[in-house]
Amino acid sequence: MERRVRNLGQVSLVGAGPGDPEFLTIRALRRIVDADVVVHDRLADHRIVDLARPGARRIAVGKRAGFHPVPQEKINALLIDLARAGLRVVRLKGGDPFIFGRGSEEAAALREAGIPVEIVPGITAAQGVAASTGVPLTHRGIATGVRYVTGHRKGDAPLDLDWRSLADPETTLVVYMGAANIAEIAGNLIAAGMPAGMPVLAVSRATLPDEMRLSSTLGQIGADCAARHLPSPVLFVIGRAVAMAEAMPDLVRQAAARQTAAFGRIHA
Amino acid sequence: MERRVRNLGQVSLVGAGPGDPEFLTIRALRRIVDADVVVHDRLADHRIVDLARPGARRIAVGKRAGFHPVPQEKINALLIDLARAGLRVVRLKGGDPFIFGRGSEEAAALREAGIPVEIVPGITAAQGVAASTGVPLTHRGIATGVRYVTGHRKGDAPLDLDWRSLADPETTLVVYMGAANIAEIAGNLIAAGMPAGMPVLAVSRATLPDEMRLSSTLGQIGADCAARHLPSPVLFVIGRAVAMAEAMPDLVRQAAARQTAAFGRIHA
Repeated sequence: MERRVRNLGQVSLVGAGPGDPEFLTIRALRRIVDADVVVHDRLADHRIVDLARPGARRIAVGKRAGFHPVPQEKINALLIDLARAGLRVVRLKGGDPFIFGRGSEEAAALREAGIPVEIVPGITAAQGVAASTGVPLTHRGIATGVRYVTGHRKGDAPLDLDWRSLADPETTLVVYMGAANIAEIAGNLIAAGMPAGMPVLAVSRATLPDEMRLSSTLGQIGADCAARHLPSPVLFVIGRAVAMAEAMPDLVRQAAARQTAAFGRIHA
Repeated sequence: MERRVRNLGQVSLVGAGPGDPEFLTIRALRRIVDADVVVHDRLADHRIVDLARPGARRIAVGKRAGFHPVPQEKINALLIDLARAGLRVVRLKGGDPFIFGRGSEEAAALREAGIPVEIVPGITAAQGVAASTGVPLTHRGIATGVRYVTGHRKGDAPLDLDWRSLADPETTLVVYMGAANIAEIAGNLIAAGMPAGMPVLAVSRATLPDEMRLSSTLGQIGADCAARHLPSPVLFVIGRAVAMAEAMPDLVRQAAARQTAAFGRIHA
């Protein structure tokens, strides 16, 4: 009987959130703490992987500048092998596992192999930026909706985005993985009708103690980003709601930073 | 000294997530447990408000069918008064406080009154649905982005949405608060060029034990929703990624339900 139970491994695809470990969900924390093995990307904050119990295996498969990441097919095969060995596997991914980051490809491969798979959502980077900067993703009369796109491209391929659809001034547009191509993205949005004066906020390492922000406009963001290095991950928020960022009192950010410093106590 | 500290009240706008209390973030849980007063909407699950300590005041201000909700200006004034009385105020909102639901209006009113305000993000309903049903919000080659809009309208006003922009078949479209108008929304999307056969998933009370799902198409969803009552809140997910829902093993849902049943132990 014990043998049958042990043979039933499972994989939880767990969202690690935007950075600050306190933005993990309770279920994500439970799954990490209970895991036999944590297979993780290169996360913005190592404290999250460190929540696994001391005896748990940790396997890094993430991208890092200058290193070849583990190919997706190998990650899928690894997850299947670990689950078939009867382990409780946590596949830890930045943000939300079903918003960019290929979590759904991993889920599909696992299901095809007959492995039970569970999705544990995470606060996505756009929400982390909004909470940290005070920029709402929607606001009545200013932004009636919000849209997330990726600014990443494969090799020299053109950016495969519907610019005319994206240039809706009533929608907050959030660009993930866009740092390398932001000048081209901004140029295309302007060409599709978005005003060059539209506010843009670039946020590096949102919700972490070394968060950096750059306020700009669609016309200027390319030059502004070229002029200074923003450590990854960087998120771009484009739209009229960005103008609401300024009023965020510093007080609150300091309070949040203190809370984060106290985080270790949860697990100690 | 103690008096000065007491006089500095503050408000945390806290996202309660989609329903299941385990989808609260750790910071949200902390704030609720530490609160002197919790001002809450009508949430999908009463267990979240019940996390407040026994001595904390609870004030319901949310909408309920057949009852007049507290007007937004009164909610703003209430939050300001409570903070000025030196209290730790949690303003608890379904989902994420900065995605629909007027959280940013409350934040702006508080800042204008000089009250320190903090934003604690929450898992938004779209993410809850994705986790619960296995439908990814993005998937390479199928959905290159995701978009959230509201299907709510004021009185008899027309739905103020850019249908041509919304009819992008490469984007997963999530409609919040759309149950009353889904037939009109679907008709407008078809008129703007979206195929009538595009998959639509309606999910009622996602992540809760009484979650219900209705699989349909853009051409059929209006009739299907009219034919059966889906208890609120209801979310609509429209796009090709919806076709990936089917394969979600029941096993995992049952496991999640068991975990949820065990939730009380965290706080007991």
